[in-house]
Amino acid sequence: MEQKNSKALHKLSELHRQHKGLINLMPLQTGGMLTDAAREALTEFGDGYSVCDFCQGSLCNITNPAIRDFVQELLPQFLGCDVATITHGAREAKFTVMHSLTRPGDSILVDANRHYTTIVAAERVGLNVIEAPNSGHPEFRVTVNKYASLIKNYAPKLILLTYPDGNYGNIPDARRLGEIAQEYNIPYILNGAYAVGRMPVSMEQIGADFIIGSGHKSMASAGPVGVLGMKKKWEETVLKKSSTFSNKEIECLGCTARGVPLITLMASFPNVKERINNWNEQVSKAQWFSAELEKLGFIQLGQKPHRHDLLHFHAPVLYEISKRVRERGYFLYKELKERGIWGPQPGLTKSFKLSTFAADRQQLGFVIDSFKAILNKYS
Amino acid sequence: MEQKNSKALHKLSELHRQHKGLINLMPLQTGGMLTDAAREALTEFGDGYSVCDFCQGSLCNITNPAIRDFVQELLPQFLGCDVATITHGAREAKFTVMHSLTRPGDSILVDANRHYTTIVAAERVGLNVIEAPNSGHPEFRVTVNKYASLIKNYAPKLILLTYPDGNYGNIPDARRLGEIAQEYNIPYILNGAYAVGRMPVSMEQIGADFIIGSGHKSMASAGPVGVLGMKKKWEETVLKKSSTFSNKEIECLGCTARGVPLITLMASFPNVKERINNWNEQVSKAQWFSAELEKLGFIQLGQKPHRHDLLHFHAPVLYEISKRVRERGYFLYKELKERGIWGPQPGLTKSFKLSTFAADRQQLGFVIDSFKAILNKYS
Repeated sequence: MEQKNSKALHKLSELHRQHKGLINLMPLQTGGMLTDAAREALTEFGDGYSVCDFCQGSLCNITNPAIRDFVQELLPQFLGCDVATITHGAREAKFTVMHSLTRPGDSILVDANRHYTTIVAAERVGLNVIEAPNSGHPEFRVTVNKYASLIKNYAPKLILLTYPDGNYGNIPDARRLGEIAQEYNIPYILNGAYAVGRMPVSMEQIGADFIIGSGHKSMASAGPVGVLGMKKKWEETVLKKSSTFSNKEIECLGCTARGVPLITLMASFPNVKERINNWNEQVSKAQWFSAELEKLGFIQLGQKPHRHDLLHFHAPVLYEISKRVRERGYFLYKELKERGIWGPQPGLTKSFKLSTFAADRQQLGFVIDSFKAILNKYS
Repeated sequence: MEQKNSKALHKLSELHRQHKGLINLMPLQTGGMLTDAAREALTEFGDGYSVCDFCQGSLCNITNPAIRDFVQELLPQFLGCDVATITHGAREAKFTVMHSLTRPGDSILVDANRHYTTIVAAERVGLNVIEAPNSGHPEFRVTVNKYASLIKNYAPKLILLTYPDGNYGNIPDARRLGEIAQEYNIPYILNGAYAVGRMPVSMEQIGADFIIGSGHKSMASAGPVGVLGMKKKWEETVLKKSSTFSNKEIECLGCTARGVPLITLMASFPNVKERINNWNEQVSKAQWFSAELEKLGFIQLGQKPHRHDLLHFHAPVLYEISKRVRERGYFLYKELKERGIWGPQPGLTKSFKLSTFAADRQQLGFVIDSFKAILNKYS
């Protein structure tokens, strides 16, 4: 026990990242890399509760640092919503909305490409989840018109759309779903964890009731932190104040992301606000990269032409190699890492996800050449 | 609108702390200042989802960085519990336990010195809260024997004790409450947000079912992050897995503090584990400081002799000054800041809280002299 503990303690003195400085293609990470400004803010506000120096009772009302302006002015404009707040992340935002708008036993309707946390958040509330199917292999498209008949059949209390989903990077017709939501008068959550901070997206234009974003996934922030935007009419439900403590929001347990991730989100925001204007180039870069990898025998799953930097590849040629090499599935991770590239989940070869968001065309060219070299080496 | 936004944006380029380098007596902050190791880890793991480089599906099972060893070996031993997990903070840990053990309409019993988030977490679950009273001014002591009759009268589903509370720094007889909990067979939460990481505390020795700690308050971590320890018998209830995703815990929504605050908690842990051994000196330092301030006419509220670094002072002499100076209540903050001291909430003079945890005796001597000088200046 003593020895085991001393080993475990020793590991805590070796907290280093093995992927530092590599070309990063990992979909979870490419939108969350800190800006220089965020890196400075990280050090400045690293100590415990340092955001609360001038707290008057509510995180989103703090004026120094300028959280109030950020949450009450900049975020609503950026998200195209009336009211915004801060959460611990996208999943916590989903739970908060579900928990405040529904009751155990209610049904909600979501897309089949939903993140697993959509299901787990619903399970935590005690909800039945109906899924609008996708089109299956190879495109896995969600056709939002299917929501209409499911609404009629199941009378869900909420609908949710993942925009785009984290598995295929598919962009469904969110605006059409906004019309359907309005037609049936059902609150509509847009989960934009892979959209907000990467690409232009407006809750108002889409016609959603809620928009959710993730700081660590797509807004150049330390983890974990999220944003939640909503129509004014939901403020009193979702951000209801405690009956005992009149300045404390019940669903936020007073304050949510009361620490440095929020400060990095704020510090990166001016850059994030600008970078979404390059979205066309991001999409074109992703399409080019995908086409080049398809020339090597990989098959890109999901929508084509693709409209997001998150790409899912089926790579039977790599899988065949993995079956006959000593490292098995890990050979790909190892080969890429040796070339300064970090992307596919270690162990995966048959099918894996990559994101082109953080790499430039020159770096992606090197990645393409590296895949070629790896295929040659093992052919 | 445009101009207002550009002002708000500009503020984001000025994210600086005004209290950097000051002698810190702010109770929320003295236990959360980062160690050097944590400061390094902060930079290393600052980017978004960087803790998830080698994720296999569950935060607390990640082996690189060594989260699994930390959560499954080091934390249980440190907390004196069977099973530990990571939360976003103490309030989220309370909500998680309440949400998984009770149903809306149930009653729970807590001490009158409870943190406001205990009430708000209960409200979020839909619980009735019964409070075991304190003794009122000036000691505000909670006598745990009062829990017994309240248990008989209200049949609560859970009891909670704040150890110590964040208002007076009172240390109630937690072990006696452990006996009472056992006698009536009621699950018992020890909220140790101001204990775990500052002073020795063991869930097992106290006889509690749950122990809760706060990384940013008392474990030298960036905010927000917390720890939750429990008896083995509660694991299946509180950490129940999703029926759809068998490796995802429902109450954790899969993973909780998936970012850099957790890494700072881990990096600081070897130091935190050691520092609790200096607790006797911490208490003695607090008692000396309190006695010196009482000589100036301040009145220390809460237990005497005091057994914690969190001290609440009633200071009529400062309040009198505030009534006749231009800065009103802010004069004290300003005077202390000019002397390199940060502690009382800006605006407060009549009664305020200080913590002696992070300052040494020489610094505290300077603080005492500064209070003397301020009193002289305005006398």
